[in-house]
Amino acid sequence: MTQLKNDTFLRALLRQPTDYTPLWLMRQAGRYLPEYCATRARAGDFLSLCKSPDMACEVTLQPLARYDLDAAILFSDILTIPDAMGLGLYFSTGEGPRFERPLRSEWEIRNLTAPDPHDHLRYVIDAVSEIRRALDGSVPLIGFSGSPFTLACYMVEGSGSDTYAETKKMLYGHPKLFHHILDVTATAVTHYLNAQIEAGAQAVMVFDSWGGMLSQAAYLEFSLPYMARIMAGLTREREGRIVPRIVFTKGGGQWLEHIAGCGCDAVGLDWTTDIGDARRRVGDRVALQGNMDPSVLFAPPEAVAAEARRIIDSYGTGTGHVFNLGHGISQFTPPEHVTALVEAVHSHSRQYHL
Amino acid sequence: MTQLKNDTFLRALLRQPTDYTPLWLMRQAGRYLPEYCATRARAGDFLSLCKSPDMACEVTLQPLARYDLDAAILFSDILTIPDAMGLGLYFSTGEGPRFERPLRSEWEIRNLTAPDPHDHLRYVIDAVSEIRRALDGSVPLIGFSGSPFTLACYMVEGSGSDTYAETKKMLYGHPKLFHHILDVTATAVTHYLNAQIEAGAQAVMVFDSWGGMLSQAAYLEFSLPYMARIMAGLTREREGRIVPRIVFTKGGGQWLEHIAGCGCDAVGLDWTTDIGDARRRVGDRVALQGNMDPSVLFAPPEAVAAEARRIIDSYGTGTGHVFNLGHGISQFTPPEHVTALVEAVHSHSRQYHL
Repeated sequence: MTQLKNDTFLRALLRQPTDYTPLWLMRQAGRYLPEYCATRARAGDFLSLCKSPDMACEVTLQPLARYDLDAAILFSDILTIPDAMGLGLYFSTGEGPRFERPLRSEWEIRNLTAPDPHDHLRYVIDAVSEIRRALDGSVPLIGFSGSPFTLACYMVEGSGSDTYAETKKMLYGHPKLFHHILDVTATAVTHYLNAQIEAGAQAVMVFDSWGGMLSQAAYLEFSLPYMARIMAGLTREREGRIVPRIVFTKGGGQWLEHIAGCGCDAVGLDWTTDIGDARRRVGDRVALQGNMDPSVLFAPPEAVAAEARRIIDSYGTGTGHVFNLGHGISQFTPPEHVTALVEAVHSHSRQYHL
Repeated sequence: MTQLKNDTFLRALLRQPTDYTPLWLMRQAGRYLPEYCATRARAGDFLSLCKSPDMACEVTLQPLARYDLDAAILFSDILTIPDAMGLGLYFSTGEGPRFERPLRSEWEIRNLTAPDPHDHLRYVIDAVSEIRRALDGSVPLIGFSGSPFTLACYMVEGSGSDTYAETKKMLYGHPKLFHHILDVTATAVTHYLNAQIEAGAQAVMVFDSWGGMLSQAAYLEFSLPYMARIMAGLTREREGRIVPRIVFTKGGGQWLEHIAGCGCDAVGLDWTTDIGDARRRVGDRVALQGNMDPSVLFAPPEAVAAEARRIIDSYGTGTGHVFNLGHGISQFTPPEHVTALVEAVHSHSRQYHL
């Protein structure tokens, strides 16, 4: 493989010295970019875009052409695994992801099996290989998956939800059955991420988008242990480098000390946690990724830059910070506000890396 | 006024000894009760129900007839103040509250004034008086208001929102203008709650439903200081008793130490915070109210009772805990599951109050 030209992101995740604070943005290849909308229109629909390695590669690279970002992230959906399990993922206009066959009966749950990533998820693995070739060593590529709990939520509900009533009914009423879904899904995620690493992903991230909907007791029983099991099962080195792991539980700021102990190298933070406080709480155990409110990007560029500087100042001196938003970038973000953000992070952070 | 027969709730809020842990449920008069749905159908629509003191009184008392609850809460809406300010509150089916005239222009914002509660909010004050008479000293009556930040969110957006884009655009882009809305609204809330106390409310609660959408820095600038100002302006004693104040920021578990210092007697907790940890963090400074996940009520009664016991055990020995849900009760809750909850809280908690 080609020598990596910019390894700032990988070094920061491992708390090694860097010249500045690296950044990338969750959902950086997305609808706020006109070039993304054009590719998506060509694909016909979102799922066809995900399932075409060529087009997934194309949109993955688009934000890097526009902005000086320090990492690329595989363009895909978090629900590819349940789709490969046979639940039938589809997107209905304006309603987000849905499954044709949500998991409800014990019989269906007992019959779940972890899919072979080289079979029904081949299109993702092919996209990873193709993106790595296209990046040509410019910046590292991040692979990712949804967390077992987040996948299980969607599998049981069949769609997004405000209350996750079906999930919680099963979690509190039939905990063993719910653990079985999590168990199979954790195995599937481990195989899936290892296949992405094998194909060229240089860091991996687990998105626990819905873990923050749980009580602490339920989080420590139903979400975190399965992420810890994934961490323990991941390939640690590839191409002579450590493959760092990031875990992000949106709404998990209160459980930071617990998350920091799950075997990850970095913890993602949403914007509700003060990153300076977070650093004091986790000490040198992990790096931190985050955490600007994506809605700040609606404000004028000078306000965006000021907020980015505030977060960098709060983190303070030294390595271990990857700048990001605290949630995916909104489709309504003016693209030129992102330019101001990237500029502010790169220039303002240098003073803390001397 | 009649002597209060059950003051357990008021005593617990002031951390005075009680025989058991008192409980009430946020949104206890609501759509999960068939008798509520019947009254609402008779009213025609939600706002007419709120604006009729007789019917508001009727639904306030309904959950008390069914369950052995330790407090009543005024039936009303959190958006009565902006409505009285002239924004034109209405409810469109399935979409939640909306304003006909959301605040967008500087001119509209500069012209905002705090309404006299005895004028456009007379229907709320009359409801408080009527409910107090009807309760006849059985349990205390809680008055309430939305927090300035939460009201300002709705006033600027004109409706609920996932991202509060308009609010954050103003907050980050024109902070002084946003502070002006908060300033006028805080004055309005203070007058409104004092009028409720004057009319007979024996405790008051401020609902900061959306404060948890902010970064810590923004919360400490735009939400908490205005709640602190309200606390400082409230009538402290009435009918020879202290009128305790509860502040509840949903999603505010990370800022508990800050909230505990705002001048309130009790802090409401959503279900993501472990209540035992919360107690260790705030010490003897405030009482705690909460914090069962309302979705637990979808599970079988035995699972409901087990989760209630877990929370009571986590809080531990002594006074200072008011049991509640961590958010309003869902309209899909089976009413008989609430019976199991009330029974479990009252019986299991006695061992901790010897």
